Amino acid sequence: MSNLKEDALKYHAEPRPGKIATHITKPTATQRDLALAYSPGVAEPVREIHKDPEAAYLYTGKGNLVAVISDGSAVLGLGNVGALAGKPVMEGKGLLFKRFADIDVFDIEVATQDVEEFITVVKNIAGTFGGINLEDISAPRCFEIEKRLQAMLDIPVFHDDQHGTAVIIASGLMNALEIQGKKIGDVNIVCVGAGAAGIASMNLLGALGADKQKLLMVDSKGVLHTGRTDLNAFKRDYAVETDKHTLADACQGADVFIGLSGPDIMTVDMLNSMAANPIVFALSNPDPEINPAVALAARSDLIMATGRSDQPNQINNVLGFPFLFRGALDVRARCINIEMLKAAVYTLAELAREPVPQDVLDAYGLDALEFGKDYIIPKPFDLRLRERVPAAVSKAARDSGVARL
Amino acid sequence: MSNLKEDALKYHAEPRPGKIATHITKPTATQRDLALAYSPGVAEPVREIHKDPEAAYLYTGKGNLVAVISDGSAVLGLGNVGALAGKPVMEGKGLLFKRFADIDVFDIEVATQDVEEFITVVKNIAGTFGGINLEDISAPRCFEIEKRLQAMLDIPVFHDDQHGTAVIIASGLMNALEIQGKKIGDVNIVCVGAGAAGIASMNLLGALGADKQKLLMVDSKGVLHTGRTDLNAFKRDYAVETDKHTLADACQGADVFIGLSGPDIMTVDMLNSMAANPIVFALSNPDPEINPAVALAARSDLIMATGRSDQPNQINNVLGFPFLFRGALDVRARCINIEMLKAAVYTLAELAREPVPQDVLDAYGLDALEFGKDYIIPKPFDLRLRERVPAAVSKAARDSGVARL
Repeated sequence: MSNLKEDALKYHAEPRPGKIATHITKPTATQRDLALAYSPGVAEPVREIHKDPEAAYLYTGKGNLVAVISDGSAVLGLGNVGALAGKPVMEGKGLLFKRFADIDVFDIEVATQDVEEFITVVKNIAGTFGGINLEDISAPRCFEIEKRLQAMLDIPVFHDDQHGTAVIIASGLMNALEIQGKKIGDVNIVCVGAGAAGIASMNLLGALGADKQKLLMVDSKGVLHTGRTDLNAFKRDYAVETDKHTLADACQGADVFIGLSGPDIMTVDMLNSMAANPIVFALSNPDPEINPAVALAARSDLIMATGRSDQPNQINNVLGFPFLFRGALDVRARCINIEMLKAAVYTLAELAREPVPQDVLDAYGLDALEFGKDYIIPKPFDLRLRERVPAAVSKAARDSGVARL
Repeated sequence: MSNLKEDALKYHAEPRPGKIATHITKPTATQRDLALAYSPGVAEPVREIHKDPEAAYLYTGKGNLVAVISDGSAVLGLGNVGALAGKPVMEGKGLLFKRFADIDVFDIEVATQDVEEFITVVKNIAGTFGGINLEDISAPRCFEIEKRLQAMLDIPVFHDDQHGTAVIIASGLMNALEIQGKKIGDVNIVCVGAGAAGIASMNLLGALGADKQKLLMVDSKGVLHTGRTDLNAFKRDYAVETDKHTLADACQGADVFIGLSGPDIMTVDMLNSMAANPIVFALSNPDPEINPAVALAARSDLIMATGRSDQPNQINNVLGFPFLFRGALDVRARCINIEMLKAAVYTLAELAREPVPQDVLDAYGLDALEFGKDYIIPKPFDLRLRERVPAAVSKAARDSGVARL
């Protein structure tokens, strides 16, 4: 990763600025072509859609088009840099949607951080799209924004920082628990970070069978417990009656540690205080909550995952959002519901347990890769993702009654 | 044009719905590529833009990206079909921007026709783009919307139905007047239709030297005159003191008739009552204000233009908007001002007076094409447009102090 800064700026600037362009998918060589594409021919699809709005899926790009929308209030690890500065990230998200699931994306940077105004903007442009991916919106605003927009709209409204992250964490955790011989309903879980990703991940783990009574969430002021008076409604929902008030308290005897906070907040003492065969997902990026080399040296019974591509077990959202949307768009789902999230979790987890094809090994320059402590979740360049995950998501959409196809 | 309806629907539906897709302009083959495009490399351009918003032009697609935005309130000749039904038109506009000037377009259909809410939406998403093309918004709402948005934003806000149409009409008229031996300051002009295109065209002709006292605008209730009490502010500005109250009155002795209204409203009697060597731009589409064959049979001294591609002298906005925006984007103009419009008018008019290259003749299957009554305006497939018009527009932006490059 030498010269990452220089290379990244050059990548974005040359030979033309940005990473995404539009292209024309139909012939435009002749006058006749243009008469079909625009005046007078275009009047025909207009009339069809005016008669039946669903015809927009037949005659426009709507059905394969997702809006990646941000207000720039919580961009990557950079914080509230504002809408415009977040544009490279949103274009990057569009690039990943296209690269992994052939979904067209318009990135839209919204210059207000007022919740009402933001909702007004998104609801009014939503018809353009087949789905909406909210991105890098700060908590707890993001919870209200997503919920209210989804209630108004008949296309999926999906906050990837919440549910995308939750899906990948959950699928990695399913496999880690399997390897460690633990059951999700039995384990003590510590989640450090009670923002968008933390709350959504704990919600999903709950839906997958985790016991809320065995779950301690920790924010910058310590454990969310019933004695605290500074909690918003979303955090309050996870406050428990406990004497454990510090992060160190919370780690004692815990089976699972999920870090969604900041670098180096977990000490070796904390790690050593965890139960036998512990699981640590240290997802702060680029610097994890505990250095993986240090952690693995301290505990040989550990399963460790990070957000880093240069470490085993990368918890990477790109394993989720392209395929969740592909599956949703393919059946014109009205939303991406919990059943669809769970279908993605199980499919990702199953895929990691299967033999790894040669082309995946080649893509990563590996001789072998086998389900185990260093391989609990599929790799992004695994083409089986595209085959399996969308199909499972589409099926869940149909089975749960939210598909229109 | 047989089977236009069937062919147009097929064109829009097959092999995939719509006419526009996105594509990735940078490498995405390796993990390293993705580390530059997204996490962690993308943090670098984010930081640069956070420091200096102008850096968005270096590291994102903003500088070549135009939003085509409509509320669907006045779509082509179809009227208020609403936002979603207008999407094929907006995608078609994007196709033309790309085809003729390599400009990327996101079409955005806005589901409100409330002026305040529409402005709130557009101003908040504007930072995403290098320019905004408002499209198919009904008058008089469009005047306020454009004016207020341009005052708020430092990128061009351009309503093509107004200014794009005005530019093409004006350039065709310059040449028609030259051929008929008339001067713009001397001629009596009748403009039928006092909506977006009519008002903007008369504004531009005024800026080019037309005498407002010799100008009669006509709406569905007749001539705009000072005795009328039903006029909005924009129409009132064109109300004159006159005894001519009907369209027939207005045509008597007129040198120029510009029709932006509806089919067959001009009779042969009206045409015959015009001055010697008259000019009729019958731009209602697909059916002009007077049938061209009928008109030319009645008056051999006539110059006639229509909006139809199967007739000579097609007044076609595609001659304008792609090149106006290309010229504006190339110098990061803050707006598209009257000087830039005039530069486009003069450049288009000059181009039509020059010998026509063989490739243009070939594109239209013509043996010859010479400046004269049947060729007053360039043809869309003339590659010289792309060379000349943007350069002239860029120069006008610089000379008038609105360019940032």
